[in-house]
Formats: sequence, structure tokens, C-alpha cells
Amino acid sequence: MERVPLERKVLNENGRIAEELRARFAEHGVLCLNLISSPGSGKTTLLERTLESFAPGECVAVLTGDIQTDNDAQRLSRFGFPVKQITTGGTCHLDARMIEKALADWRLEDIDLLIIENVGNLVCPSSYDLGEAAKIVVLSVTEGEEKPLKYPSIFFKSELMILNKTDLLPYVPFQIALAEENARRVHAGIEIVRTSCLNREGLTDWLAWLSRKRAAARKPAASAAF
Amino acid sequence: MERVPLERKVLNENGRIAEELRARFAEHGVLCLNLISSPGSGKTTLLERTLESFAPGECVAVLTGDIQTDNDAQRLSRFGFPVKQITTGGTCHLDARMIEKALADWRLEDIDLLIIENVGNLVCPSSYDLGEAAKIVVLSVTEGEEKPLKYPSIFFKSELMILNKTDLLPYVPFQIALAEENARRVHAGIEIVRTSCLNREGLTDWLAWLSRKRAAARKPAASAAF
Repeated sequence: MERVPLERKVLNENGRIAEELRARFAEHGVLCLNLISSPGSGKTTLLERTLESFAPGECVAVLTGDIQTDNDAQRLSRFGFPVKQITTGGTCHLDARMIEKALADWRLEDIDLLIIENVGNLVCPSSYDLGEAAKIVVLSVTEGEEKPLKYPSIFFKSELMILNKTDLLPYVPFQIALAEENARRVHAGIEIVRTSCLNREGLTDWLAWLSRKRAAARKPAASAAF
Repeated sequence: MERVPLERKVLNENGRIAEELRARFAEHGVLCLNLISSPGSGKTTLLERTLESFAPGECVAVLTGDIQTDNDAQRLSRFGFPVKQITTGGTCHLDARMIEKALADWRLEDIDLLIIENVGNLVCPSSYDLGEAAKIVVLSVTEGEEKPLKYPSIFFKSELMILNKTDLLPYVPFQIALAEENARRVHAGIEIVRTSCLNREGLTDWLAWLSRKRAAARKPAASAAF
């Protein structure tokens, strides 16, 4: 019972820092995306495919969260873009303060697109605003069609659902239309793309979505200048 | 900063109730197991295969936790054993109080084996003792070999790791020996079984493990009487 007011206080404080981050992102024309999923749904591999699609010199950066290890940062840094690992040391989600701290020695002027890969967890990260322009939920086809109903919060709050690992559809009892229907029952307006990072199916749909969001986030002054 | 003492208080209170539950389980010869995994690793299907292996009248019961929906209880209740859904309404884990409450109208005299299916979450449930004799972590082969290193707490605390969905091994880039090595790096003594609930590979290993644990948990008086 006594936990509720403190939790609210923590979330209020998180929200305050997130709003500061959001204002800074807007000021510098940074599109910030917060990628959330269960452990093992393929976020890091999706980011590998994403980073390798960008031309060298594009102003893209990644923050990647994990409880332990810097495996993901190692995997992602080979593409030549700035990547930083946030190791939470037990905490089940990223919070706005961790993002603020991780960004302290990066210049937002040099970033157009900042992708945050959250800790693998379909529950807790959905409560913590990181100042992002949009949350994206990744659901792999091995996880079951009912996940949007069982974990509604993150599907409700996400602008886009990426249905990943479609290459496995022939081998798993997963009804993809039902999964999409369930996501739309929770969030009628959610956008959906289907992807496979192994056979690359649907990656162009995801990159096109990203490209539209980046164009919309660009500062009017900057786009006039270039 | 101020969160820590309160968290400790919550965990202490949880631990106190868990110890009471553990004493009651011991008194009645109930083997209680706490099944933990990411969302979608196949816990419920594993329980379906498990329940269908039992003869009618065996004293087996299941508590199944989810944020929302009673889908899992519906799926599991068709086997004729007592099943109860605990819907946490947003909370990312089960706690001992929820178990105590769910057990209030069940007679422990009538239960030999109580399986608790936790909320799908590889992080938070590992901190909450439910009075179980053992935690079991389920990892599916679609989730990546590095999960024991990224989420060490639950692998450290689990007596058994079930490597599930082995039928998908031909289709995923998953090195099963490396996954087992990683689990043993975190917890040298962890037992491991490999299972597929689709082609039923390894289910006998899991059921044999369960059978050994049940035999060990049986009350001496009761086993003498029967």
C-alpha cells in the first residue's frame, strides 16, 4: 500500500527528466526511438540490419540497455556509428536519468537519429518515459499471438509493432493475423510491420517507416539549410 | 536513493510470508516449484504436456500468473486438475502474498505438487521468493545463447534450466552447447534438460526430474502409510 506514493514520486521525477530530454531532442532535431520487447525477440539483430543499411557518416547513434554484459554494444559498434552500453546492474528497465547520463559526453548536434534498445522486458520499461518520440514494441512469432492481450500496456503505448522472425512462421503454431488483431484490440491505431532479420523479408518496410519518421522530425531550419 | 530501504522492506515482508508458506508446504509434503521465463518461452505449453502426463486423481495443482487475461488458466484447466489464475493487473511478478491469497480456499492436504507459473519476465520474478522448493528457468532456443550472462540472477537462483523449443534448432542460429556453458558459468551446479513440447523430445527427462523431486519431498510418515 505504502509503495504507491513512492512509485508515483519516482515516475514523476522520471517524467520530469524525460520532458527535459524531449525538449533537447526537439531543439536539435533528434528523432529518439525506444525499442522494447521480451528478451530474445531479436532487437539487437534488427539494429544490426538497420545500422548496416545506413551510409557511413549518417548521424545515427544507439544506446543499448542490459542488466549485465556489454555484448550488445560490442555487436553494434562494428558498424562505425556511436554506440554506448548502459548496464543497469539488476534494474529491469532503463530510466530517463540513465539516458541523460549516457548522453552527457555526446553532442546532440551530431545526432539525427537516436535509437534506444531497452532492457529485454515486456512489462517494466513501458512505465518509464525516456523522452522518446515513439515507443516501438518488437514481438517475435515464437512468442504467441496472445501477448498483446497479456501485456497490454506496451502495445497500447507503442506507435509501431514489429512482428519479427517471420522466417520461423512455417515451424511455429503462430497465427499472425490473430496477433495483429490482438494488437489492434489493445491499440486500434498501432502501425505494424512484419520482418525477418534472417531472410530480410520486410526490412524495407521498417526502414521506410524509419525514414518517414526521420523526415518528420527534421528541424525546419536545418532542412531549409541543406 | 530513498527507494532502496523501502524495496528492502517490501522484500523482507515478502520473505517473511514466503517462509511461512515454505513451512506449510513442508508440513503437508507439498513440492512447490516456481517456473520463470521470458514471455513466450513456452511455459504454458510445457505445463500442458506435464499435466496430461499425470493420471487422473494425482494431487497436482497449478497457479498461473499474468498481468492480464485468464487465458493460461483456461488452457490448463481442461486437464481436470485444480488451476487458478492470478492476474496481477500490471505488477511484473508474483509475490508471496498473492500465493498465500490464492491458496486460501485450497486444502494443502490435497496437494502433492504445486507448480507456479510466474509472470513472463526474466528479471523481476527472480527477486521474489514464493516459498518454493526450487526455481526453474525456461529458456527457449529462439532467445539467444547469451541470456544467462545478460540475466544472471534467475540462472544463478534456479535449480534447473529447461532449454525449450529444441524442435526449432535447425531453423535458428542458436548454439545449444554455448547456452549451456553460459548457464554453468553463472551457476556451476545448474541441472539442464532439453525439451520440445511440439515433437515431445526430452519430455521424459523433465518428467523424470519432477518425479525425483516429488519423491524427495514426500513426507516420511505419508510414504510409510501408503
